[in-house]
Amino acid sequence: MTDLLHPADHANPAAIKRLAVLTSGGDAPGMNAAIRAVVRTATHHDIEIVGVRRGFSGLHRGDMRIIGPRDVANTIQRGGTILLTARSHTWRTPEGRAKGAANLREWGVDGLIVIGGDGSFHGGYFLQEEHGVPVIGIPGTIDNDLYGTDHTIGYFTAVETALDAVDKLRDTGASHERIFVIEVMGRHAGHIALEVAVAGGAEEVFIPEDPKPVDGVVQIVKDSVAKGKASSIIIVAEGYPGGATGVSDAIEKGTGLETRVSILGHIQRGGSPVSSDRVLASRLGEAAVYALMDGKKGVMVGRENGQIVHTPLHETWEKSKDVSRDLYRCAKMLSV
Amino acid sequence: MTDLLHPADHANPAAIKRLAVLTSGGDAPGMNAAIRAVVRTATHHDIEIVGVRRGFSGLHRGDMRIIGPRDVANTIQRGGTILLTARSHTWRTPEGRAKGAANLREWGVDGLIVIGGDGSFHGGYFLQEEHGVPVIGIPGTIDNDLYGTDHTIGYFTAVETALDAVDKLRDTGASHERIFVIEVMGRHAGHIALEVAVAGGAEEVFIPEDPKPVDGVVQIVKDSVAKGKASSIIIVAEGYPGGATGVSDAIEKGTGLETRVSILGHIQRGGSPVSSDRVLASRLGEAAVYALMDGKKGVMVGRENGQIVHTPLHETWEKSKDVSRDLYRCAKMLSV
Amino acid sequence: MTDLLHPADHANPAAIKRLAVLTSGGDAPGMNAAIRAVVRTATHHDIEIVGVRRGFSGLHRGDMRIIGPRDVANTIQRGGTILLTARSHTWRTPEGRAKGAANLREWGVDGLIVIGGDGSFHGGYFLQEEHGVPVIGIPGTIDNDLYGTDHTIGYFTAVETALDAVDKLRDTGASHERIFVIEVMGRHAGHIALEVAVAGGAEEVFIPEDPKPVDGVVQIVKDSVAKGKASSIIIVAEGYPGGATGVSDAIEKGTGLETRVSILGHIQRGGSPVSSDRVLASRLGEAAVYALMDGKKGVMVGRENGQIVHTPLHETWEKSKDVSRDLYRCAKMLSV
Amino acid sequence: MTDLLHPADHANPAAIKRLAVLTSGGDAPGMNAAIRAVVRTATHHDIEIVGVRRGFSGLHRGDMRIIGPRDVANTIQRGGTILLTARSHTWRTPEGRAKGAANLREWGVDGLIVIGGDGSFHGGYFLQEEHGVPVIGIPGTIDNDLYGTDHTIGYFTAVETALDAVDKLRDTGASHERIFVIEVMGRHAGHIALEVAVAGGAEEVFIPEDPKPVDGVVQIVKDSVAKGKASSIIIVAEGYPGGATGVSDAIEKGTGLETRVSILGHIQRGGSPVSSDRVLASRLGEAAVYALMDGKKGVMVGRENGQIVHTPLHETWEKSKDVSRDLYRCAKMLSV
Repeated sequence: MTDLLHPADHANPAAIKRLAVLTSGGDAPGMNAAIRAVVRTATHHDIEIVGVRRGFSGLHRGDMRIIGPRDVANTIQRGGTILLTARSHTWRTPEGRAKGAANLREWGVDGLIVIGGDGSFHGGYFLQEEHGVPVIGIPGTIDNDLYGTDHTIGYFTAVETALDAVDKLRDTGASHERIFVIEVMGRHAGHIALEVAVAGGAEEVFIPEDPKPVDGVVQIVKDSVAKGKASSIIIVAEGYPGGATGVSDAIEKGTGLETRVSILGHIQRGGSPVSSDRVLASRLGEAAVYALMDGKKGVMVGRENGQIVHTPLHETWEKSKDVSRDLYRCAKMLSV
Repeated sequence: MTDLLHPADHANPAAIKRLAVLTSGGDAPGMNAAIRAVVRTATHHDIEIVGVRRGFSGLHRGDMRIIGPRDVANTIQRGGTILLTARSHTWRTPEGRAKGAANLREWGVDGLIVIGGDGSFHGGYFLQEEHGVPVIGIPGTIDNDLYGTDHTIGYFTAVETALDAVDKLRDTGASHERIFVIEVMGRHAGHIALEVAVAGGAEEVFIPEDPKPVDGVVQIVKDSVAKGKASSIIIVAEGYPGGATGVSDAIEKGTGLETRVSILGHIQRGGSPVSSDRVLASRLGEAAVYALMDGKKGVMVGRENGQIVHTPLHETWEKSKDVSRDLYRCAKMLSV
Repeated sequence: MTDLLHPADHANPAAIKRLAVLTSGGDAPGMNAAIRAVVRTATHHDIEIVGVRRGFSGLHRGDMRIIGPRDVANTIQRGGTILLTARSHTWRTPEGRAKGAANLREWGVDGLIVIGGDGSFHGGYFLQEEHGVPVIGIPGTIDNDLYGTDHTIGYFTAVETALDAVDKLRDTGASHERIFVIEVMGRHAGHIALEVAVAGGAEEVFIPEDPKPVDGVVQIVKDSVAKGKASSIIIVAEGYPGGATGVSDAIEKGTGLETRVSILGHIQRGGSPVSSDRVLASRLGEAAVYALMDGKKGVMVGRENGQIVHTPLHETWEKSKDVSRDLYRCAKMLSV
Repeated sequence: MTDLLHPADHANPAAIKRLAVLTSGGDAPGMNAAIRAVVRTATHHDIEIVGVRRGFSGLHRGDMRIIGPRDVANTIQRGGTILLTARSHTWRTPEGRAKGAANLREWGVDGLIVIGGDGSFHGGYFLQEEHGVPVIGIPGTIDNDLYGTDHTIGYFTAVETALDAVDKLRDTGASHERIFVIEVMGRHAGHIALEVAVAGGAEEVFIPEDPKPVDGVVQIVKDSVAKGKASSIIIVAEGYPGGATGVSDAIEKGTGLETRVSILGHIQRGGSPVSSDRVLASRLGEAAVYALMDGKKGVMVGRENGQIVHTPLHETWEKSKDVSRDLYRCAKMLSV
């Protein structure tokens, strides 16, 4: 077991000397843990890290500085991102990207690590295609909607935050015998909704992957009341057509019962990351540096079945990640 | 210090044998702690407790049963109310209240303890006026809008829940450099909003007690940006005219900056009560039983400056409780 | 995607009519979610569930009753186990087990589901060997030390609880520039310690799987101080020889620096389960019922790489589950 | 209500230009909120603040720098203290204090604000007595053991942290039917223990203010078991003779029942401060600056019955603050 202490030999065949890292798009809990892992893995292999502030916008403007191991001390537990994030309109133009590439050359950077979602990966993909900068993506988004990784950084924390809200609403729902319709985030995907529905013991869940007609809702709620369930928790993914408001309206119209809509919104993006997100971020931050040292480029590092995998950036948004059928079945059956 | 062990002598001059307790109106964290204190204080003085389910609705329908010390075991940490709560339309009619009074007589009840807000106290007040049932109120509402007590049961927990959301939004607001407009509960009062604003370090707070024109907002946000504050947290009490949406619209129109609105809603009613609510509920539950034993009636028990006080029920809604000027000043000055 | 609604056909070839379920050994967060899933999956397939209280002790004494879907309502979020758990001395005798088997026959039970750790699985294993009762195990223990499943129910919550303590100690450690030595649970295994070390950004971790000599500690702490780290968090698994106290003594003797020992203990067993534990418990509770319907016996249901797997009960304690080398390397490298 | 916007006129008759602030002794959640309030109140009145790092140790060594409103941004929710804290041996000598006073003169400081407990106030008291530096104390300690304020900064958070642990232990205690003996902090005082006992629904509480003989414990536990309470939570203040271990030993010896001891320790000092601590810290930070502006010196600012009060520093440790008899009675009676 002593060889546990000896990591796989990473001989840095690509002779990387300096890398840049940025966070882009919506922030997600665990981004700081990923930045920390990038910086410390790099330091361990005598590689310098340039931190780019405010994503591609900062890359374009040259808002960059060297960051070392002490700069990321005491950040693993922090929500948000110490590198800040922003949307960049200039990055959508070839001129904008050319300016960014020039900045990276000026700083002597051998590769760029992009922490974000598919929009951010697009930004990195074009930079590499047009200017040859090796780019590695790290999946950082609460939505868990990227192909090539079982989970994205921030997903677990967002689920926990939404679940905490569901538990609180159940308290008051059970006491007041009310129907709560709760909208959770997830963009076009139902991952968060499904996990929260199973974990929260919700009576019903609506996700964009199964846009069943709203009529069925009414009968479900009526049955629920008939079964003696005085209160109901209904989870709606923000990507489901009509959202929570639509579902709520249909229930009120069909049953005559009063409902309460709760749209959790951006609180799901914040908070100290839960352990699973911190560990995933630590593993992927390490893997991103190793990927560049090994000469890889244009891929996202992900974790599938516990193993690090590399997926071409364009596949992460071209291929789709299904929601779990097992969870969907559980959500239905266990809400009896 | 040994006399600590000897409570004030409560000789039960009113010769109370059996009391009823109910929770009514919106539920609040700590209601269970209050019920538990009522039951155990009564038991300690050989008084039986009848638990009424679903508030005045259950009183009207006779949904009652004896509850003992073991029935309230392991409930002090639970959100919601084990006695359930509901709105009662029949209670607004003299016939409805007559039926409830008859039920209390049938059960041999010497007095009724009502845990709730001003609506609930109205219900109890009319019962006493019309049928002579001694009624004691315990302030159980997150809104803290009752005259006669420094704080109401549930207020501290609601503040903590809202504050947790503000902390999470600050994470993402600081990373994304955004303006968040957060609406908190409180009905017609700004207590929750003010406390959350000070504790959350909000840049601005809008409460119904000071309906200042919305124009000022724009300049405040512009100044904030000028001072180098890239993100802003603005708290709006639900009772402020226009609510969070109105404030948000005004800011967007006046500054051209994008804002995000978050309406926390009913999660503020749920969750395990924080220590301050459990302790307050324990003290007031005890005090309510003592008040009836001492022959008091038609009053709410409250805690002011650490002492138990008794306020006529009608004063609790007729007199108004001011928000704290000190907090308001702090909120302004410390957000520099 | 509509076929998502149709679960795999479970034709119940074993013609199961009634099953029993018990929790045994140390309790773990998520046990209630597992019980709930067992009850509701069974109900969905017209199978009755007998709940046995206080584990094998209750099975021996016949402390059993039918539990239905409503009995498990509002329990998914509760820590502990509504079926209670206990140690049973009588169960270690053939006579004790014969009595338990007789009780199961008397209740017409076709199989037993045991939720617990390896000690509990031993109890079930002998029952099946000696009396032919089909037994299925569900891994419920915070220690994650069972072969045949990536994670055990309760593990994720225990990690989160320990991590929360580490975060709090880091606050005070960073302010006071102190060295904290924190002992976490895990019996003979280092899973919790390792995960908490990575997620908590600990400077050092000691696990039983790598009983490196204590001398190295001293130099590590000296280096840490030299690197400008004024405070240190050191995680020690309870199974590491000498525990936190031993490590602390060695550091104080070798460095002359003051340390603080924190032994978290049983708080790691309690609390509302996190989402990952609730979902795992839901999946495994369902799988346990299906296993019996499919005629399986003497196996533990587990989840590996997202899939349900079945492992002979005796293998769960005979084969050993390694700690993650990847995590161990991360823990070392990222604490630079 | 518009005059809410106009604070009391503070004309700064003492003509304060620059103040210093330090945190000393054990850290407490909310210290950062107090520092923030000091800095921003001062800024609002055109006063500069010098932050002293590591308490009196840093004052002696001259570890000081100007801190402005932006330096305390985003700190109100942080545990620990951004100014760090330490014990100082040199400060106990007249020479050490003379050096500190010289440093303050060199920086042109008109007064010093000390955030800490009685040890820290001693340090400030001697500085003022010997060198004439106006000193104001802010009560920052989780122990709540200072005369002159209803609560100290950090107390509410420590109670909540301990209560969270009690809730978790109750989960497992109730499931396993065990007796837990939990030791909470508080130095020589029982405030935390008492509040946690009432809020946690503990069966028994032992505090130094009532050192009743241990024999009584045995009968209490026996009675509790006889009453059908299978599990017990017993809270012991660290200042009670023998601590949790002593109480546990006595129970085991007298009843033959197994107990589990949990010593919560330093986690009670960490964590994000709860709302009550942040608000108290904000009020007292403001009050400390006003006190100096008004020419006050040698006093601690505190809050009693909602009002700011000033108490001579030496009285804060000479006079004793009693524990609440009401809480003690509640703790007893409600644990029936």
